[in-house]
Amino acid sequence: MKLIRFGELNKEKPGVIIDEVYYDVSALGEDFNETFFESDGIARLENFLEVNRGKLPKIPEGSRIGSPVGRPSKIVCIGLNYADHAKETGAPLPPEPVVFMKASSALVGPFDNIVIPKNSEKTDWEVELAFVIGKKASYVEESEAMEYVAGYCLHNDVSERAFQLERNGTWDKGKGCDTFAPIGPFLATKDEISDPDNLRLWLNVNGQKMQDGNTKTFIFKIPFLVSYLSQFMTLLPGDIISTGTPAGVGLGFNPPVYLKPGDVVELGIDGLGTSTQKVVAYEKN
Amino acid sequence: MKLIRFGELNKEKPGVIIDEVYYDVSALGEDFNETFFESDGIARLENFLEVNRGKLPKIPEGSRIGSPVGRPSKIVCIGLNYADHAKETGAPLPPEPVVFMKASSALVGPFDNIVIPKNSEKTDWEVELAFVIGKKASYVEESEAMEYVAGYCLHNDVSERAFQLERNGTWDKGKGCDTFAPIGPFLATKDEISDPDNLRLWLNVNGQKMQDGNTKTFIFKIPFLVSYLSQFMTLLPGDIISTGTPAGVGLGFNPPVYLKPGDVVELGIDGLGTSTQKVVAYEKN
Repeated sequence: MKLIRFGELNKEKPGVIIDEVYYDVSALGEDFNETFFESDGIARLENFLEVNRGKLPKIPEGSRIGSPVGRPSKIVCIGLNYADHAKETGAPLPPEPVVFMKASSALVGPFDNIVIPKNSEKTDWEVELAFVIGKKASYVEESEAMEYVAGYCLHNDVSERAFQLERNGTWDKGKGCDTFAPIGPFLATKDEISDPDNLRLWLNVNGQKMQDGNTKTFIFKIPFLVSYLSQFMTLLPGDIISTGTPAGVGLGFNPPVYLKPGDVVELGIDGLGTSTQKVVAYEKN
Repeated sequence: MKLIRFGELNKEKPGVIIDEVYYDVSALGEDFNETFFESDGIARLENFLEVNRGKLPKIPEGSRIGSPVGRPSKIVCIGLNYADHAKETGAPLPPEPVVFMKASSALVGPFDNIVIPKNSEKTDWEVELAFVIGKKASYVEESEAMEYVAGYCLHNDVSERAFQLERNGTWDKGKGCDTFAPIGPFLATKDEISDPDNLRLWLNVNGQKMQDGNTKTFIFKIPFLVSYLSQFMTLLPGDIISTGTPAGVGLGFNPPVYLKPGDVVELGIDGLGTSTQKVVAYEKN
């Protein structure tokens, strides 16, 4: 199944994509969030679709598409998980995963604007495969880890490199700015992706290919990551885990290239659709 | 006012302390969370107490006390914000605040156990003054920052030093383990604390004084922190910001001293009460 959420930011309603048609499943009476995933929501949604097939309303043309997952308890990200990206940032290959957190207030839809923060000169892109936790995960064995994954989605782990690397502190300062987590267009349930370790992922800026990688060059694969992270914190249903980015980010160019207002970022992963964000300057509401 | 939450973990009900008596305010029909703070909940609670004074039920003796704030969108922490603590960790004085995030799944009540994670040998304590955001804060001026603060509470920023400093990555790995954020006993609204820059704070382990500091030695004060953080991310109502710890953590001893099962940690801040946590080993539920 492909789960979506649509409508106004922070008031999204649930939907599904079936044969490329977008259907409203608000009648299910649930949002795709922690409560949904922890209470076997995907199975309930399947039953609901079975019963209501043929009478689901279509989502109006031009509706905004939001993040396919409601605000999670946390967004946990892995840094430097592709050998080629580690090299371009000048970092050594990590002996164990680099972990950081992204403020959940950064979450937006796949076609929303990326807002360059005030005083930012180094806003950068990162196409990533994200996965969503399906049940509470604490001290999980690698061999059982995939049972804790509900599905996958596309994520642009937008990053302000000066805030992240030059402003004294952990990476979190440059990762959690508002709009820095466009997720979607949809959550593909686990059954839709037969081999998450062999997905091409790419990112264009203004039509020019900047990133073109494949998850087969992961340093740490998903089952390991679930198990690893669950040693440090309990992963909750609906939590979003982002698996790192391949080579080709702006920081890796010589000289570095960063986003500016008017730029258009387009990204995609095999089986998980594409997203597009326009870059805009910060303006006070 | 002093706000508390009581009852089973993650099912807490709201209460208040008036003249040292604990009252149940479940009849208000709200939890002390993002929705409460963003919709002027403190004023509503004041009105409720005015109307219902004299007929509020008392909280049963022996009730568990939870975190005074429901799970926030984020827990943002400041590192090395006391000159004496920066010195004991061997870190230089920070030119600007060190910022990291604590997984909100770490949140527990002030008298709950601290669970030493599996494979942990360096679980440490940190008494801190935390404050709670009262309204959405984005690019806030320092001069107006206090308008965004709802109140204060006591926080033990429990930290696993090996996970934090020796496991390749940002501090987040060692800060967000389950039970690593005992908060409370109560949230004191802003009016209760006349000078947050002059509060003594202390922490004992097994009755022995380990930390004994004062917020007057803050490197960065609260209005600056609100303004600073709001440049990097929007702070949401109910978000918890923790302001750093004074000298005397286990890491600072020579040789370092860490928590072990059976230890009892007691901590307090002027005007914000005291909390006590027993340290236990991890056991599978």
